[in-house]
Amino acid sequence: VSGASPIQCAIIGGSGYSGVELLRLLSGRRDVAVRRVFAGGSAGKKVAEISPSLAGRVDLTYETFEPALVDGFDVVFCALPSGEAMSIVPSLLSRVGKVIDLGGDFRLATPALYKEFYRKDHTAPQFLGKTVYGLSEVNTAQIAAARLVANPGCYPTSILLPLIPLLKEGLIGASGIVANSLSGTTGAGKSASVEMSFSEVNENVRAYKVGAHQHLPEITGFLGEATGTSPSLSFVPHLIPCSRGIYSTIHASLAPGVDEGKIAECYTGFYRGARFVRLRSDIPQIRDVAYTNFCDIGYRIEPRTGQLVLISVIDNLVKGAAGQAIQNMNIMFSLPQECGLL
Amino acid sequence: VSGASPIQCAIIGGSGYSGVELLRLLSGRRDVAVRRVFAGGSAGKKVAEISPSLAGRVDLTYETFEPALVDGFDVVFCALPSGEAMSIVPSLLSRVGKVIDLGGDFRLATPALYKEFYRKDHTAPQFLGKTVYGLSEVNTAQIAAARLVANPGCYPTSILLPLIPLLKEGLIGASGIVANSLSGTTGAGKSASVEMSFSEVNENVRAYKVGAHQHLPEITGFLGEATGTSPSLSFVPHLIPCSRGIYSTIHASLAPGVDEGKIAECYTGFYRGARFVRLRSDIPQIRDVAYTNFCDIGYRIEPRTGQLVLISVIDNLVKGAAGQAIQNMNIMFSLPQECGLL
Amino acid sequence: VSGASPIQCAIIGGSGYSGVELLRLLSGRRDVAVRRVFAGGSAGKKVAEISPSLAGRVDLTYETFEPALVDGFDVVFCALPSGEAMSIVPSLLSRVGKVIDLGGDFRLATPALYKEFYRKDHTAPQFLGKTVYGLSEVNTAQIAAARLVANPGCYPTSILLPLIPLLKEGLIGASGIVANSLSGTTGAGKSASVEMSFSEVNENVRAYKVGAHQHLPEITGFLGEATGTSPSLSFVPHLIPCSRGIYSTIHASLAPGVDEGKIAECYTGFYRGARFVRLRSDIPQIRDVAYTNFCDIGYRIEPRTGQLVLISVIDNLVKGAAGQAIQNMNIMFSLPQECGLL
Amino acid sequence: VSGASPIQCAIIGGSGYSGVELLRLLSGRRDVAVRRVFAGGSAGKKVAEISPSLAGRVDLTYETFEPALVDGFDVVFCALPSGEAMSIVPSLLSRVGKVIDLGGDFRLATPALYKEFYRKDHTAPQFLGKTVYGLSEVNTAQIAAARLVANPGCYPTSILLPLIPLLKEGLIGASGIVANSLSGTTGAGKSASVEMSFSEVNENVRAYKVGAHQHLPEITGFLGEATGTSPSLSFVPHLIPCSRGIYSTIHASLAPGVDEGKIAECYTGFYRGARFVRLRSDIPQIRDVAYTNFCDIGYRIEPRTGQLVLISVIDNLVKGAAGQAIQNMNIMFSLPQECGLL
Repeated sequence: VSGASPIQCAIIGGSGYSGVELLRLLSGRRDVAVRRVFAGGSAGKKVAEISPSLAGRVDLTYETFEPALVDGFDVVFCALPSGEAMSIVPSLLSRVGKVIDLGGDFRLATPALYKEFYRKDHTAPQFLGKTVYGLSEVNTAQIAAARLVANPGCYPTSILLPLIPLLKEGLIGASGIVANSLSGTTGAGKSASVEMSFSEVNENVRAYKVGAHQHLPEITGFLGEATGTSPSLSFVPHLIPCSRGIYSTIHASLAPGVDEGKIAECYTGFYRGARFVRLRSDIPQIRDVAYTNFCDIGYRIEPRTGQLVLISVIDNLVKGAAGQAIQNMNIMFSLPQECGLL
Repeated sequence: VSGASPIQCAIIGGSGYSGVELLRLLSGRRDVAVRRVFAGGSAGKKVAEISPSLAGRVDLTYETFEPALVDGFDVVFCALPSGEAMSIVPSLLSRVGKVIDLGGDFRLATPALYKEFYRKDHTAPQFLGKTVYGLSEVNTAQIAAARLVANPGCYPTSILLPLIPLLKEGLIGASGIVANSLSGTTGAGKSASVEMSFSEVNENVRAYKVGAHQHLPEITGFLGEATGTSPSLSFVPHLIPCSRGIYSTIHASLAPGVDEGKIAECYTGFYRGARFVRLRSDIPQIRDVAYTNFCDIGYRIEPRTGQLVLISVIDNLVKGAAGQAIQNMNIMFSLPQECGLL
Repeated sequence: VSGASPIQCAIIGGSGYSGVELLRLLSGRRDVAVRRVFAGGSAGKKVAEISPSLAGRVDLTYETFEPALVDGFDVVFCALPSGEAMSIVPSLLSRVGKVIDLGGDFRLATPALYKEFYRKDHTAPQFLGKTVYGLSEVNTAQIAAARLVANPGCYPTSILLPLIPLLKEGLIGASGIVANSLSGTTGAGKSASVEMSFSEVNENVRAYKVGAHQHLPEITGFLGEATGTSPSLSFVPHLIPCSRGIYSTIHASLAPGVDEGKIAECYTGFYRGARFVRLRSDIPQIRDVAYTNFCDIGYRIEPRTGQLVLISVIDNLVKGAAGQAIQNMNIMFSLPQECGLL
Repeated sequence: VSGASPIQCAIIGGSGYSGVELLRLLSGRRDVAVRRVFAGGSAGKKVAEISPSLAGRVDLTYETFEPALVDGFDVVFCALPSGEAMSIVPSLLSRVGKVIDLGGDFRLATPALYKEFYRKDHTAPQFLGKTVYGLSEVNTAQIAAARLVANPGCYPTSILLPLIPLLKEGLIGASGIVANSLSGTTGAGKSASVEMSFSEVNENVRAYKVGAHQHLPEITGFLGEATGTSPSLSFVPHLIPCSRGIYSTIHASLAPGVDEGKIAECYTGFYRGARFVRLRSDIPQIRDVAYTNFCDIGYRIEPRTGQLVLISVIDNLVKGAAGQAIQNMNIMFSLPQECGLL
């Protein structure tokens, strides 16, 4: 885009981990200009004061959000705590070109599901079931055409990318899928709580929200939509003593006659040209993808049970949040997907 | 045992993590006297020189093992690397009262299984299938009568304790069980390898030996034996950035009509009087059991899938190794199981 | 004390890290009975509900503190947040035999110092300068005779134990001492703050309160008192990604003619019979003392500068808090210092 | 440099942490082309096989180094274990344009110093005392003109950058400087040793090589050279449970009349235009500089002792190794210093 004027953008919720990651990733780009960044609690303070890592790279001051301040912007990223975007985004769409929401407000299909899993009423129900789900590699065309994209959650990204191709092509069964995911702590956001304190998280592991996590309907919803099946999924998230990363170990039953070669073939075909999905012959590790936008996928057929084990890893703040949001922005503005992400 | 002379014991393999944990746990007891400790590579050195944490508590010098040195001892603990005990233990049994082997040499049922999973020939095959498996709470009577006990592995302990009661009483199905376990690094022993270095393990997770871990046949073997079933188990171990602890998340299918109340009832009955198994109404965490001999078990029925999720945690060096070995010694010498372990 | 009735004790502030550590360490003793435990915010809840690690070991329920509830008790431990003990302890002394305060309220010499470093007025100034400072190995006789003991802070314990013998015997100079200390996070107590969250502490280090930490006057005050000098100390505390432990590296100038032999001789003489101080010829590590009441001390004379470098390590929750408090209780009740601590 | 042909470069020692970091940082550049990468032990393997994080970014195969393979290259980076570069670099200089050595072989002034601290004889002593020391912000002009640059060590970088301006302008004294540094584990390289294993490093701290670390003469040597003084420095390095980062806390005596304002003024003047040195009014943390080429410097005058405390942080693999090497390459090729580093 040399010669062209840069994309004008703003970030609402720019002091949390996802917001700061957006600032970090966008700070090096010449084709995108972050014009404003909003964070109510930090309004009036320099970004570098709140996040000294950005000193010398980002010279912006946090402001209190007001819709008029983004009038005419090309794109706005929303990185707000759950439940806050739904009161802002609808009016935003009349003021700006495109909106990418990193939260969970627009990912589910119905108000009832939203209420069941988020424990509150949705105030913009007309968007539910109609917002484009921003799983970049799967929904590319829809994202390119969208004005509002619901950026996927970190757990869903790590679980959907390995499952969709296999389920769509019938290599695995839709029922009895088991997904155990391990998450780094930044997935929980900046948190002032005893249970997220170092003393409680270090040298510890805990599962939480067993069968009740808000990402469960997001996963089964889009998995069904993308594959034309009605999947049944058991999902257990765990908190582990890592700062970054999602590690998902997924068990599924194989269709008759499927071997590792057919698995590989399916992935290779499905993700042809998808630079951020890397098929692995060994077992992926979080460190392979930390601070990158890659999703690495490995697979093994257990010799005794014949079960398929899939393993997928992402960085929760990059491919699981800010990185995929930028990948979606690239798609929406007809840029190469990897701009600013390699 | 006041008045009685203390139990005379020795430790073979006393410089590894399990051996040092045995020394730590036994150092405070007056009813047990550790007379000798063997570690080939450290022979001639004081225990406190190799493990400064034991300075002022253990005043022994490592020796090179020779059978005659333990003649007439009441009990010998073997905490050797895999494959070393099988050449020592048979002759040991003619010299000492009892032997507790913390390794994997005597846990499997057949030489063929041993060869498949440990990748070497067993040199004392006559012991396979006949050695008492030392899962303290389940095999108590057999342990009490045994001269040789094969102390369970850390993963098996954490998986068998929650599964056995439910499977034995038919509350869950024997097929399609999925166990994902997360292990602290001390489970791999003192290791001079790049892959176990801090730089590689920290901020990382990796699954390993998917469907091929040597604990798999140990688990399915004893699970079948203890419950009279032929279980099918998918087992994926993971290494996480923790020093101590095993966290097992287990998925199983419920028999019709089983609810959480029946699960609780089953456990309460089965583990009545078993002080080291704690049934939890919340979700267990590693920190609850670190540095203790407890196994904590939690359970949830997922509302959408109806699947049962069991969660169990132990300290891999205590209940998963040295602690359970001492618990077994207590049983073998008619002492209260909790002696020296609370 | 077999045959004798156990010491009746209570713990005020029993749900924080120090309080729980007191419960853990005392739970195995037959000669001490914890009759009541107080924690305002958890009143009515079982200890095991707040701290599942104590399930099956401590069967008490938290209560709201009222002075009458401890009438006639032999000893009360106060493990309250800074500033709370001073309003409770004075009246407590008329009701119970002895009081051991684990906080900072009674450690400083004057109300002015207290106000300068704790930023509030002291409401029981008559105790300042008169309360026995509970550094077990140094103040043993005074502790034995005391009704109120101010248990030392974690940083001070780690810095005073190595400095006092050398300074008292004139082997090092009193000026230009530099102490850099690294602390695990439990030293900050159970904390619901972003800055103590795992995401902020992990893969990070930060110094804090440079030259202004409240432990500075505690260290210089008692160091002067115990050695008859007027020491000048530069003290920088750091927070590191560890749960437990204090690591103090101390630089001091040597008196002429002092070599490592004389250092060793001085320590050996001074700490003769002090079981919890271990002189090391190698460099101590936190792991050597974790979960123990030991303080390990190492020393090196730098060949180029001739400066003395002292290194001392403790577990901040044991020797730096609950363990030393129990050691002091043992002294106050004429028990061997190591009772319940080995 | 659009239009110009890219700088042709090679990396010798491309499979260690510094080598991989060089590959990572250079992989995104269009103005630099890494043509060959050498690593004896991995010869024949793809870079992505050894370092899966580089899959899809670096498409090179490790080779065994032979001088002829780099004939005519513009620049070669040497990232070899200590002692290996000195036998390669001399002949390299006749074949390639420029050489940047990341190891310690060319940093000291004399063969005697080298032997004392590295415990072996130097085989290319003619280079000692004559090689340009690559502290980018201080030796900029010399680096620009050099054909061989000795890239500084991680500890020295973190200690020299804060000390040089103050000492050069006489704001602090040259004697009695105390530097305590904390290092992440990657500073020790890829290491297959028990002492660098996760089990030994986690929940632990240890000082090492007190007064004897090979970086000590590097620090005092260049500090003296750059400031015209004869500094006396007490230096204690510590290993902490972090993967990345150096945290240096430095105590120095202030010249009369110096206050914090003059410190700030001195730094601001000295580092004007130096984009990678950030002066901080608060206390720097490792996380502020992780994965960046920044060195952040904070300072406090202790009110009681009047001592100056300097705190400086870098990422040991970036500003402490690969990043500064690239910064030096930028200088040597007349590119903006920050190319590829922001």
